Amino acid sequence: MKFSTQLVPMKNHTAETLANERSKASFDIKEMDVFINGQERINGREKAVSIVRAEPETFDQKDVYYMGRTEMLEKGYKQEKRMIEMLREGKITQTDIGLISDLLGWPTPFGLTRAMFIPTLTQQCNEEQKKAFLEPALDYRIIGCYAQTEAGHGSNIRSLETTATFIEETDEFEIDSPTLTSTKWWIGTLGLSATHAVVMAQVYVKGKHVGLFPLVIQIRSLKDHKPLPGVHVGDIGPKMGYNSIDNGFMNFDKVRVPRFNLLQKYISVSRTGEVTRPANINSRASYGTMVFVRANIASNMGRLLAKGVTVAVRYTSVRRQFGEPGKPETPVLDYPIVQYRVIPILAKTYAMIGMSHEFFAQYQKSADLISKGDFSMLKEMHAVSCGLKRWSSTQAIYGVDTCRHVCGGHGFSQFSGLNDFFATIYPNIIFEGDNYVLAKQTAMFLAKSAMGLAKGEEVDMNDTTRTIKHFMNRPAVLTEKELFTWTGKTAAEIVSSNQLLLDLLGFKFVAMNHNMVVKIVRKGQSWDDSSIESQDLASAHSEYIVCLYFSRHIAKLPQNSGLRPILDILFKIAALSFLNSNPAELYGFNKASAMNRSQIVGLQAEYIKYIKIAREQAVPLVDALGVPDEKLNSSLGRYDGHVYEDLIKRALNEPVNRDGTGDEIRERFYKNYIGPVLHGKSGSTKL
Amino acid sequence: MKFSTQLVPMKNHTAETLANERSKASFDIKEMDVFINGQERINGREKAVSIVRAEPETFDQKDVYYMGRTEMLEKGYKQEKRMIEMLREGKITQTDIGLISDLLGWPTPFGLTRAMFIPTLTQQCNEEQKKAFLEPALDYRIIGCYAQTEAGHGSNIRSLETTATFIEETDEFEIDSPTLTSTKWWIGTLGLSATHAVVMAQVYVKGKHVGLFPLVIQIRSLKDHKPLPGVHVGDIGPKMGYNSIDNGFMNFDKVRVPRFNLLQKYISVSRTGEVTRPANINSRASYGTMVFVRANIASNMGRLLAKGVTVAVRYTSVRRQFGEPGKPETPVLDYPIVQYRVIPILAKTYAMIGMSHEFFAQYQKSADLISKGDFSMLKEMHAVSCGLKRWSSTQAIYGVDTCRHVCGGHGFSQFSGLNDFFATIYPNIIFEGDNYVLAKQTAMFLAKSAMGLAKGEEVDMNDTTRTIKHFMNRPAVLTEKELFTWTGKTAAEIVSSNQLLLDLLGFKFVAMNHNMVVKIVRKGQSWDDSSIESQDLASAHSEYIVCLYFSRHIAKLPQNSGLRPILDILFKIAALSFLNSNPAELYGFNKASAMNRSQIVGLQAEYIKYIKIAREQAVPLVDALGVPDEKLNSSLGRYDGHVYEDLIKRALNEPVNRDGTGDEIRERFYKNYIGPVLHGKSGSTKL
Repeated sequence: MKFSTQLVPMKNHTAETLANERSKASFDIKEMDVFINGQERINGREKAVSIVRAEPETFDQKDVYYMGRTEMLEKGYKQEKRMIEMLREGKITQTDIGLISDLLGWPTPFGLTRAMFIPTLTQQCNEEQKKAFLEPALDYRIIGCYAQTEAGHGSNIRSLETTATFIEETDEFEIDSPTLTSTKWWIGTLGLSATHAVVMAQVYVKGKHVGLFPLVIQIRSLKDHKPLPGVHVGDIGPKMGYNSIDNGFMNFDKVRVPRFNLLQKYISVSRTGEVTRPANINSRASYGTMVFVRANIASNMGRLLAKGVTVAVRYTSVRRQFGEPGKPETPVLDYPIVQYRVIPILAKTYAMIGMSHEFFAQYQKSADLISKGDFSMLKEMHAVSCGLKRWSSTQAIYGVDTCRHVCGGHGFSQFSGLNDFFATIYPNIIFEGDNYVLAKQTAMFLAKSAMGLAKGEEVDMNDTTRTIKHFMNRPAVLTEKELFTWTGKTAAEIVSSNQLLLDLLGFKFVAMNHNMVVKIVRKGQSWDDSSIESQDLASAHSEYIVCLYFSRHIAKLPQNSGLRPILDILFKIAALSFLNSNPAELYGFNKASAMNRSQIVGLQAEYIKYIKIAREQAVPLVDALGVPDEKLNSSLGRYDGHVYEDLIKRALNEPVNRDGTGDEIRERFYKNYIGPVLHGKSGSTKL
Repeated sequence: MKFSTQLVPMKNHTAETLANERSKASFDIKEMDVFINGQERINGREKAVSIVRAEPETFDQKDVYYMGRTEMLEKGYKQEKRMIEMLREGKITQTDIGLISDLLGWPTPFGLTRAMFIPTLTQQCNEEQKKAFLEPALDYRIIGCYAQTEAGHGSNIRSLETTATFIEETDEFEIDSPTLTSTKWWIGTLGLSATHAVVMAQVYVKGKHVGLFPLVIQIRSLKDHKPLPGVHVGDIGPKMGYNSIDNGFMNFDKVRVPRFNLLQKYISVSRTGEVTRPANINSRASYGTMVFVRANIASNMGRLLAKGVTVAVRYTSVRRQFGEPGKPETPVLDYPIVQYRVIPILAKTYAMIGMSHEFFAQYQKSADLISKGDFSMLKEMHAVSCGLKRWSSTQAIYGVDTCRHVCGGHGFSQFSGLNDFFATIYPNIIFEGDNYVLAKQTAMFLAKSAMGLAKGEEVDMNDTTRTIKHFMNRPAVLTEKELFTWTGKTAAEIVSSNQLLLDLLGFKFVAMNHNMVVKIVRKGQSWDDSSIESQDLASAHSEYIVCLYFSRHIAKLPQNSGLRPILDILFKIAALSFLNSNPAELYGFNKASAMNRSQIVGLQAEYIKYIKIAREQAVPLVDALGVPDEKLNSSLGRYDGHVYEDLIKRALNEPVNRDGTGDEIRERFYKNYIGPVLHGKSGSTKL
């Protein structure tokens, strides 16, 4: 397809505009990259980028936007095969595979053998089982999945319908799917790939239900990959995103496996059907795994949002619209309403990534304690991880949505990089507990902590309980003015102190928690009926924790660090965005702790003031997030600012435009449809 | 692919559950359908359904979820060809094409020749031009598009770069695209279909810029459909949605067209280059068209949301999770947190569709006045239509998103019917003015009205200005208690009166407007800086108008109508959802009009109370919205409730599962990728 190659964009050129924005940086971008991402992650990112750049025929993702589902799957398989080859050649490690996947920006078909099959085997196999299942899995001589969810059963795993019945005569388990709703569903890596599955089933021995346990089941032949007899398995079909992986369904028609295949960590069944459960299992330890998985999601969300905000900031910096007559149009990021939507997302991105460093430090501390049999940190870590997974995934998904929207019409093009991306991150609101359900976990912990403290019970002390206790003020060592530090201060005075902002965020969740607890204790409000206010309460708690952890990460910098001034501003913007998101929560404080109207309205004015300041540093700040062009995969977000050149280049590469294949398609459309319409007989077609 | 056909879902069966919900209806479903949709629309819907059902090989949309872009386009062309055949055979009308398109749920490739090309020609051609362009367009002997937006230019059309220069020597205009950013972009029906375009260009005559005007330009040969010399045209590539239509780009390299092709409504250029503008043009009349287009979008949004909420209500009624031990699991719609998310959307759907009837009546009234030269209603209609387009599109898009989220994991499957759908309705936040930009139109009208009233100027009276005047209370005929009718009342008393809810919604926008006007007048706050509070202000105004118009539509029913009790409840839920969305607005009332904390907190309790009541009627209420299964195209939302049967049926039809094509794909994946991994040499792959 012909297109004038000599044409250039109107002035001011987008690339020059972006370079000009960069020249305004008040801080060292590389230093900031190290602060926010950490040197280890930077090293990993650079290695992954070098691998991906070296083999564009396999790893270049520019063509994915043109692909149908089957092509996506095929590309994903090609990438898997190559990564495993490199692994076998010793060129990359399992960790590198994760880093490469992250850069590719989509899940590849064997993802779940790594993310779920191998970890489950690692944790729940005995030594013999490890030899039989784990070792070949680590070598990709078998590929597995983790089959828990069923078509009719998600969060409530106790209601799963798949059965595994011990057949003493043959020393086997018989796996059966008694209903349509018991069909395993949504299982990643199952639809087309897996040879084996860890299947969660209701285990029956000698007619008695003994509980829900995992069994390893071979589902496809290792010779020809055809499903084994009695196994009905396939792909669940197209999804909003995640189309490069084969989420599958599976239904068992009385399939037999050896007794050996029941994973032995939590249960064992003898040859004669005696059921034993090991005595030394602390059920609380399994919480540790859940905390870890959720902590991982929460930590990743800031990094996903980094991609969205990089595209939005760069594009709104170079995209011009309206302005004063006779002058070049104004970059849209100069408009208050655009700043108001984008800059807080930038601040939250920093807060979320910053938080993750401290969060993992806390997680590590609690894991160390657990290994010594000390579970004192576990409850808070569980509540915090549920809360942060919930809060940060919602922030990331709708943050990316806002980033797309501020890009205007071009945001809607796949070449914005934000559409398949939005679709792919979207299920994080459901993974590992639906966000609306997870709020309850956090809220119950908060409510019970407050109740315990009120009753004078012994309560484990941590960031959360210390804050509750502080504001419950027992024993009363502080005056009201010492406790409610904002009393009598102007909004500007409040915002000038990061500690005061933390005080307000802390008291906000304590006050909301108090209101809920009163209803529960005095009015007998049920947990189900508390679920509505639990949402805002869990958010308020997460926002406090995010700011607290972020402030601790900043505190690691030397006092005279050149990064501090701008980080200080980002901290204030994040904190103010949380305080201003629903000011009714501030109006609702009781008399002793009350904020007055001019304070509350003043916080909004302060917020806008700091947003305007941060706007000046927006481009350097997204540069420092270090998202490579390969990960952005975006015309609008390119580092070099050549937005329009890239848009046309990608459009010309659209299959219907291409010379050859495109010619054939266009001729077919014309011959079969457009031509017959244009040259067809005219009948009574007038309006 | 084999799958057990004898399997049925667990009990309670979903179909029985849905039938049971229907048996609880407190009103006549058909009567409600007539009330909310109107008999004319029902007739149209039934005709479209019968056409679509009669020719499934062309119109059945079940297979679209499996399609790549080229297949979608091909299916769209096939549908266009068939619709135009039927039109030519006199079997259907142009109106029917709109109804069929609505049912198909995606845009078809010739959509813009109908929606923009023909209307522009109708309005702006003189009689000769009508013969040359409009008549063949109506017969589909030419297919056109409307080329305004450029790669670098959207809302600010004054900055468009395409030029049309009068060449006196040859009596032609020369069309040129001087830069890359001047390339026409996003133009629907252009990429592969159009033979002609209405092109908006900066017109130059004798070296002088005379303004921005439309010219008709032939762009492809009518013989072989190849682009004409100097025209570089193609498809802009894949998008978030809208992939069944060919949005295109186009660049002109000094293309000549006859002077005749400049549309003559607002300008004419003589043979010798004299420019004349007709004297009898009232520029305000063109506002009427914009009002009409936005009114159409606003009215359509409730009908789109009807699809989302139908899927969500039906599926959450039959989907069970958790519950009391020993009993069947609880339908998720019985959980307060699910009701809290779904039922207000149901209420808003009714309010939005109900509003549209009154809105069109108002629009008609204003159009009649305009035709008599009376423009007194135009300003408010413009402000209302900007506001309602903005507000209702945001409500619909994020309402559909919530509907998807409450469906849990299956919401993420294409078979939910809500994913391509979400993507397709998403650009309504940008069409006809970005929603964030549109808020200014409404807010400026409100601010100027208040300023005018305050200064005692003569201001046209309408629903908006009457409300502002009422609460500004000039002349003061009412006591404060008569004016602020909620004073001294309990929350329950307030909610018991629909008029009181309207008073609160009306005063809320008046108070917010007052706060903004004070900043503008006393502190010199700019319009740009007012853009942030303009958003909430415009929403508050729209919410008042929606409730006002909805209440008027209800008022048309006889007093003893059996529909009134449930409509009354829906009205209250909609109004309360608006009052409770940001209670800080209520806390912010001044002293004379103040609401106290127990009133504000009480409104939330009332809201939840009414939501629980409406939940009992949720299934009959979505049935009455009358969305056919063809439009839902959803396993989860099926009228008959056979959710799981349909999910597996659709999954089995996924191309990679199909016998034949699927076998080939699976064998290829195994041979090329999976097999080599499984049987490849094991190297140092251990963790």
